[in-house]
Amino acid sequence: MPSTNQQILLAKMPTDRLTEDCFAEASADIVPPASGEVLCRTRYLSIDPANRAWMQAATYRSQLDAGTVMSGSTIGEVIAGDLPAGTIVHGDGGWQEYFTRPVSELQVVDVRAPLSHYAGVLGVNGLTAYFGLLDVGKPTAGDTVVVSAAAGATGNVVGQIAKRVGARVVGITGSETKNAMLRDRLGFDATVNHRSETFRADLRAACPGGIDVYFDNVGGPVLEAVLSRANLHSRIVCCGVVSQYDTGTPGPGPRGVPGHLVTKRIRMEGFLVHDYADQQPAALDELHDWVARGELVVLEEIIDGLSGAPAALIGQLAGSNVGKLMIRVAPDTA
Amino acid sequence: MPSTNQQILLAKMPTDRLTEDCFAEASADIVPPASGEVLCRTRYLSIDPANRAWMQAATYRSQLDAGTVMSGSTIGEVIAGDLPAGTIVHGDGGWQEYFTRPVSELQVVDVRAPLSHYAGVLGVNGLTAYFGLLDVGKPTAGDTVVVSAAAGATGNVVGQIAKRVGARVVGITGSETKNAMLRDRLGFDATVNHRSETFRADLRAACPGGIDVYFDNVGGPVLEAVLSRANLHSRIVCCGVVSQYDTGTPGPGPRGVPGHLVTKRIRMEGFLVHDYADQQPAALDELHDWVARGELVVLEEIIDGLSGAPAALIGQLAGSNVGKLMIRVAPDTA
Repeated sequence: MPSTNQQILLAKMPTDRLTEDCFAEASADIVPPASGEVLCRTRYLSIDPANRAWMQAATYRSQLDAGTVMSGSTIGEVIAGDLPAGTIVHGDGGWQEYFTRPVSELQVVDVRAPLSHYAGVLGVNGLTAYFGLLDVGKPTAGDTVVVSAAAGATGNVVGQIAKRVGARVVGITGSETKNAMLRDRLGFDATVNHRSETFRADLRAACPGGIDVYFDNVGGPVLEAVLSRANLHSRIVCCGVVSQYDTGTPGPGPRGVPGHLVTKRIRMEGFLVHDYADQQPAALDELHDWVARGELVVLEEIIDGLSGAPAALIGQLAGSNVGKLMIRVAPDTA
Repeated sequence: MPSTNQQILLAKMPTDRLTEDCFAEASADIVPPASGEVLCRTRYLSIDPANRAWMQAATYRSQLDAGTVMSGSTIGEVIAGDLPAGTIVHGDGGWQEYFTRPVSELQVVDVRAPLSHYAGVLGVNGLTAYFGLLDVGKPTAGDTVVVSAAAGATGNVVGQIAKRVGARVVGITGSETKNAMLRDRLGFDATVNHRSETFRADLRAACPGGIDVYFDNVGGPVLEAVLSRANLHSRIVCCGVVSQYDTGTPGPGPRGVPGHLVTKRIRMEGFLVHDYADQQPAALDELHDWVARGELVVLEEIIDGLSGAPAALIGQLAGSNVGKLMIRVAPDTA
């Protein structure tokens, strides 16, 4: 068993945009597992915009503390403790090479596909897209479905599932390159760049029949623009607020709330994938099938080495990545 | 048949707060009904905050035009045309003593209670409270239900129905006098004054277990405050945005949208009573029963004479009235 554990600490809280000096590398002794616990080697560390939201305030989890190991979702391999060695688990292992956690805080992964997929398309992101779109958004064939952060880990899957339902799919990103990829590789029907000066007119042109379902990963001005184009009885799936994460001064709420909701009888609803625990096995089976048959394109961006995590998160918040961003902490041959 | 028709025109659009000089009295010839139409005498004219919203923009109806008879919901009595004389109808007769309308644009009222009730508690307001609270808000016994504009025509009925369900009911108004009435006369469990400097702390104190259902008539800062106290899986019923009607410069949207919706899995949903047409007869039977048995207290403020309508609406927008505000246009003995 190794004896030292490379870690990255959240050294200090950001006051505005996240910078590398908020993080610090550290080394600690490995904590042997107590009864009911396991020691795991981190295989993949998921890099998510929500990591930055955790620094702002309590959300669906408690706020992060400065001076402790940075939190993060991980795919780990059990080395010792109360699960068989080699078992693959999912949980918040944090930004470190090894983690020791109670078995009760981890989910055992039934590995039937490349391991990296369980950090994204066959993990939280894929399930979030699946339940948020299908259960909250409830699109039907012919609906116009709009998704923001559409090239992101969740957004790209939302768009692909919406296409399966027979919807017309419009993706919003901040990059022409991403938009071209969404159209050419994933079959999105149209795309809009929210950084364009003509964004509102572009959105209108891309949605001539209005918007029936909006899967919102960003909030802010994009949500405001969508509200003004939303149809009667449309649904807005509230999944994230990326536009407001990487700042010390979040903007005001979107105009038109609640006015548009009243006049157009819009339903706007938040959800978390954790609420669907009992339905996850069936959803995972379906996601596995789609991936195995090549019907669901898997977009992953994998960076080797834990020390790259701060730059990866900072880049992601600036909009630099496509698909699921993750750190390969231990080589696949480890 | 009379020959002249006293009217109040929307003479010009308000640019900021509504003022009396936006209205002008006029006199016109009575229009005889064509085939498929009826001529009605206006008995009661409903005065509603939404009247002001209609001046701002298209909503669930087209925007008002300056220079035409002011629109308004009326209880009318048929004088001539394609319904029997004496038939009572509900529809948008406008601010005038007589109106001629297609029968297809009117609803015949089955009168089983004092006529004024059909302008409020047994009309749009009662049905709005009924369907909004029960179908959209879905409170259960023990829930904390908060309602804003709680002494208004819809809000007071929301609170009374919520009490029937077994909920703990908290009313928000801008007046200590109104709040005392809600507690003492209608049995509200607690009240909060949104004009108080300690409003947020007062709301927290009034809702120690958080908020499960919020029936929102006002939007703006009150909605923002409620969002921060809303419970997991709570419901926000979007009925109106009174805080933003009487101004030329509506404020920003509420902070915490969509952030709180995501982290607390809140459902925020607009509705209009028109969407429940098929369920209205059964709901009206129930509302009639409650009123007849004295279990639903009817709060009405009736002003005699059409010429009082502008001041009534302006006063209502400033928060001066309690319960259903209406103009008795023709004496009940007419």
